[in-house]
Amino acid sequence: MEVRLAESLGFCFGVRRAIEMAEENPGSQTYGPLIHNPDEIKRLKEDFDVWTTNRPEDLAVGRKVIIRTHGIPKDRLAQLDREGYEYVDATCPFVKKPQEICARMSAQGYDIVIFGDASHPEVQGVVSYADGPTYVVQSPSELSSIKLKSKIAVISQTTRKFQEFMAIVEYLIARYPEVAVFNTICNATFDNQDAARELAREVDVMVVVGGKNSSNTKQLLAIASEICPDSYLVERAVDLDPSWFVNKQLCGVTAGASTPKWVIDEVVEAIKRF
Amino acid sequence: MEVRLAESLGFCFGVRRAIEMAEENPGSQTYGPLIHNPDEIKRLKEDFDVWTTNRPEDLAVGRKVIIRTHGIPKDRLAQLDREGYEYVDATCPFVKKPQEICARMSAQGYDIVIFGDASHPEVQGVVSYADGPTYVVQSPSELSSIKLKSKIAVISQTTRKFQEFMAIVEYLIARYPEVAVFNTICNATFDNQDAARELAREVDVMVVVGGKNSSNTKQLLAIASEICPDSYLVERAVDLDPSWFVNKQLCGVTAGASTPKWVIDEVVEAIKRF
Repeated sequence: MEVRLAESLGFCFGVRRAIEMAEENPGSQTYGPLIHNPDEIKRLKEDFDVWTTNRPEDLAVGRKVIIRTHGIPKDRLAQLDREGYEYVDATCPFVKKPQEICARMSAQGYDIVIFGDASHPEVQGVVSYADGPTYVVQSPSELSSIKLKSKIAVISQTTRKFQEFMAIVEYLIARYPEVAVFNTICNATFDNQDAARELAREVDVMVVVGGKNSSNTKQLLAIASEICPDSYLVERAVDLDPSWFVNKQLCGVTAGASTPKWVIDEVVEAIKRF
Repeated sequence: MEVRLAESLGFCFGVRRAIEMAEENPGSQTYGPLIHNPDEIKRLKEDFDVWTTNRPEDLAVGRKVIIRTHGIPKDRLAQLDREGYEYVDATCPFVKKPQEICARMSAQGYDIVIFGDASHPEVQGVVSYADGPTYVVQSPSELSSIKLKSKIAVISQTTRKFQEFMAIVEYLIARYPEVAVFNTICNATFDNQDAARELAREVDVMVVVGGKNSSNTKQLLAIASEICPDSYLVERAVDLDPSWFVNKQLCGVTAGASTPKWVIDEVVEAIKRF
């Protein structure tokens, strides 16, 4: 079976970078899971002695700390410093940017509106950099009860959809005289989706590699299935069913944003053997 | 015949203010016509000795100058000062604002994008306050060939439509990391339209007072006619046709943005007599 990979698949730039930083710092510990993939966390533990801690209380004294892509609140970073931890900052550069904007614009007296989920670690990190009022909202309707200053800066959680961000932006522009808009959306998620759509048109069977419970992976499967009805989701090579490839010429492969490269490689090798 | 006036009609705030300033300065001269209405220009001339000059060369030495609502370019104002003219600035406050924004943001290194007509005096005035690059565009497509800096400030000619402004804003936000949006649209034009729409629902005949060639007046007629088929346009009371009011109870009256109050009053009195 011939295999063609999606032009963009698997880890985004920020996660790939964080994993590399973990590998370059054996014996370290991550502040929260680096990625939603237990196999990858296990690999880092076994091959590089990189521990994963979920709560600040669990940090082991003496082990270097790796800050994950989402970043952490400003006061937590200060606390690590105070407590003498050495740390490696793997905060994604695309997340650093909204943190900096939040700090700069609120220092200039702007009210900060963030499109995103207030309970998401990335957003909690960004909010922590504000030196004034911040409002985290998921839709324009949430703004209707809020009285904002005449100078507003708007930023977005990196993984959000542009059109939903624009709905918030438009609501504000219609009502306030000055709205500084910072498009902090990262296209990585959408790059994988666009590439899956394109690939599905060229092949006669599609395999999506990723967690069965990952919403990101399921979305890739939905996109692929719409174009190529013979699309399947597998977590590992063992899930592949030989009957999928009978009378097929070309198999497309894509993978969710939390799927490690070695899992993708394993699946691709297995498909090639059919 | 009973008459009901639209809640908003005729001159906008800025024009009303400019005319009052002209009346308060008899013997002055306006820098360009104060308004697109020859009857009103004639009235100011006859009753207040206010002259209208169309070109800077035509300014009469010794007469006070009235700057009209659109404003004038910065260097022209400086020239008036240099040449010793006394002047009264009737630039609309809603036009002063984009002038100030243009000056402030370009001084801070922002590229300035203006949604509007580059040949319109208001826009020429606004552009003149920039201390760096400005780009006047009517649609997003005009931006496609322009390479902008990463910091952009966007403003609108005051009389433009919000949704068309947003099309430009969205184009920029999708492509540039920082877009400071200043909603400088004035709602006066739309206030007259909204009020005409509302009034047309309540009456059984509508009269729109304004120039037969004024696009603004024609738009009011179109809006009224859609709801109240018995809608008519008149320039003056003499244009009224008694047959329009046969078997009608209530007549609505609205007026274009260049229609003086005394013309509206004259028409209203004539309708009442039917």
